[in-house]
Amino acid sequence: MGNKIITLLTDFGTKDGYIGAAKGVIKRINPQAEIVDITHDIDSCDVFGASFALNNFYRYFPKGAIHLAVVDPGVGSQRQPMLIKTKDFFFVGPDNGIFSFTYEREDLTDIVVISNKKYFLAELSSTFHARDIFAPVAAYLSLGVKTEEFGLPAKECMKFIIPRPESKGKGLKGQIIHIDRFGNLITNFPADLLEKQKIAEIRVGKRRIKGISASYFEIKGLGALIGSSGFLELAVNQGSAQKLLKAKVGEGVGIDFE
Amino acid sequence: MGNKIITLLTDFGTKDGYIGAAKGVIKRINPQAEIVDITHDIDSCDVFGASFALNNFYRYFPKGAIHLAVVDPGVGSQRQPMLIKTKDFFFVGPDNGIFSFTYEREDLTDIVVISNKKYFLAELSSTFHARDIFAPVAAYLSLGVKTEEFGLPAKECMKFIIPRPESKGKGLKGQIIHIDRFGNLITNFPADLLEKQKIAEIRVGKRRIKGISASYFEIKGLGALIGSSGFLELAVNQGSAQKLLKAKVGEGVGIDFE
Amino acid sequence: MGNKIITLLTDFGTKDGYIGAAKGVIKRINPQAEIVDITHDIDSCDVFGASFALNNFYRYFPKGAIHLAVVDPGVGSQRQPMLIKTKDFFFVGPDNGIFSFTYEREDLTDIVVISNKKYFLAELSSTFHARDIFAPVAAYLSLGVKTEEFGLPAKECMKFIIPRPESKGKGLKGQIIHIDRFGNLITNFPADLLEKQKIAEIRVGKRRIKGISASYFEIKGLGALIGSSGFLELAVNQGSAQKLLKAKVGEGVGIDFE
Repeated sequence: MGNKIITLLTDFGTKDGYIGAAKGVIKRINPQAEIVDITHDIDSCDVFGASFALNNFYRYFPKGAIHLAVVDPGVGSQRQPMLIKTKDFFFVGPDNGIFSFTYEREDLTDIVVISNKKYFLAELSSTFHARDIFAPVAAYLSLGVKTEEFGLPAKECMKFIIPRPESKGKGLKGQIIHIDRFGNLITNFPADLLEKQKIAEIRVGKRRIKGISASYFEIKGLGALIGSSGFLELAVNQGSAQKLLKAKVGEGVGIDFE
Repeated sequence: MGNKIITLLTDFGTKDGYIGAAKGVIKRINPQAEIVDITHDIDSCDVFGASFALNNFYRYFPKGAIHLAVVDPGVGSQRQPMLIKTKDFFFVGPDNGIFSFTYEREDLTDIVVISNKKYFLAELSSTFHARDIFAPVAAYLSLGVKTEEFGLPAKECMKFIIPRPESKGKGLKGQIIHIDRFGNLITNFPADLLEKQKIAEIRVGKRRIKGISASYFEIKGLGALIGSSGFLELAVNQGSAQKLLKAKVGEGVGIDFE
Repeated sequence: MGNKIITLLTDFGTKDGYIGAAKGVIKRINPQAEIVDITHDIDSCDVFGASFALNNFYRYFPKGAIHLAVVDPGVGSQRQPMLIKTKDFFFVGPDNGIFSFTYEREDLTDIVVISNKKYFLAELSSTFHARDIFAPVAAYLSLGVKTEEFGLPAKECMKFIIPRPESKGKGLKGQIIHIDRFGNLITNFPADLLEKQKIAEIRVGKRRIKGISASYFEIKGLGALIGSSGFLELAVNQGSAQKLLKAKVGEGVGIDFE
């Protein structure tokens, strides 16, 4: 059943009907395909944000699910269309780093540069590969076409350098890597890094946070907790840490251990 | 068929991939479940608005439909996860008043405080119960698991006090309880209350409205009609009453009868 | 299979639960119907924008698909509810021009003014025909009810005059007809009109653009290309032409041929 599921994550919005065309293409090739909208509201051209969002959901789907992720400012350039297979999932999208967070967790069993025009839409544009290449490839995958049919194997694919926390004095220096819909500031401190030592203080701008809360509800003012993405988050209970701190992605966050 | 349908109403937005994870959890537990997105755009933490929106759609679904509603600022606190059964539907969500409008219309046949970890995600966070508790419970419900399996029965659940119009002179005093996407101002005057008497004048701020229109199209300037939610609405034809009046939820609205 | 698919395009947003009610109505009448969200984010009352978006996706769906399109400022007025059949598709919505772009491409085999209350919701409002008329009609269509069952045939239906480019000197004068989510300015110059002659210069406001790019990626500063809608677009690579030019729909665009 699983490989009938095709999830969609894009920055196309919905109001222009563009992504509707991609859905039609999928259903025409495989009427049994089950399309699951994840989002079309990724900030325009925010490949990093797309990669982060993808990491939050992909592994919860049934084995065999096909994850289509298209934030594609390089459409029509030399960037390649890619198909990646891991133990449990398929990923289809541009080779621009959009799968970077996924590569951290998964062994890639197949990497294929998509080139077989048999699986493209007959009329191929140079502006809309979500409709013309990625949607039909995902649909044919869901029909059971083998990965090697779509093109030639590749050894690697593009990855962002995901910034890692660095040692500094008695603590660590990291940064904000994502700001979510609630204004929570998600840092690059993974949960397991913080389990080993007791946190004395978290610093962001001129603010100091003492210790880690168990839930948003426990936080008074500005607080910190391990969020559902598996990273340290700075948050305000029923408010926006982003607005409070006027924070931006890339801003530094320091941790001092006891 | 009906109890294969799981509707989703949340304030998670979509761009972070959070709600995508909840969808994956559902499909992994019950591949036959049919997920219907209602909205993920409830204003952040607006439990009242969520309750109002839920009231606009739940009863139109086939019998047996499972309505998952998660606007959950108290996640990780003592607020309980609840499962409610009415004659025709199931409701799953936090016990924070999100089902208040529904309780007005429905007899609750079962109220269950969800506690059976057998039906939770194996890794339980204290920040994201939509994914870890509510989605799996809805999925198991759709597989036919009985309500009593999920936890212990409760006698009641949290309800907002939904403000009611009060008598004042020759008329009634009510208020704006919701502002919709079109800027229509929805009041707490239910249609049946207004059917009995003839309205002379509706007052909001310094404005006066004479009588009730049959449709948005009939309205010249600011007007009033019975909206599809079953309440008196103040509206501007092809415009926004909210913008015209700079109105807010809670603002008073008066009615004088003839 | 195809006529189990019902696509939805509206300006209702999602946060009020209105469109959720329409989905429930469909699933109650035909539990096998497959609802595909196209968008609910059309600008409020923007019938032209809805027509443009519809044109971007409808023909990619499997034959027999039912396209429900409701942007309906005239609900409750004399405007008629319409059902249109073309060779491959069904269209259901208000007779207000929302299908204008479609009429350009398709032969209409049946035009029916919907009037048979047997296929309406029992309680008919004058404010929400998406739920009370259009959704149930689409659902009954998906069950195989014949078009003539829904009402009386009509000879024509409302169409916008879609503005066409005019000759001017050695070139053409057209205009911006749509601004998409990325800020791309879509003009009324269709691709085939531009294939015949070589473009020397494109003029918009005080700006001059030399020639046409093959993709967004190729553009330096402000550029032009044939977009996926099949029209000339003005665009900024990874930016917004709309913001750069502060452009609006209706603004003139000139082309000089060599």
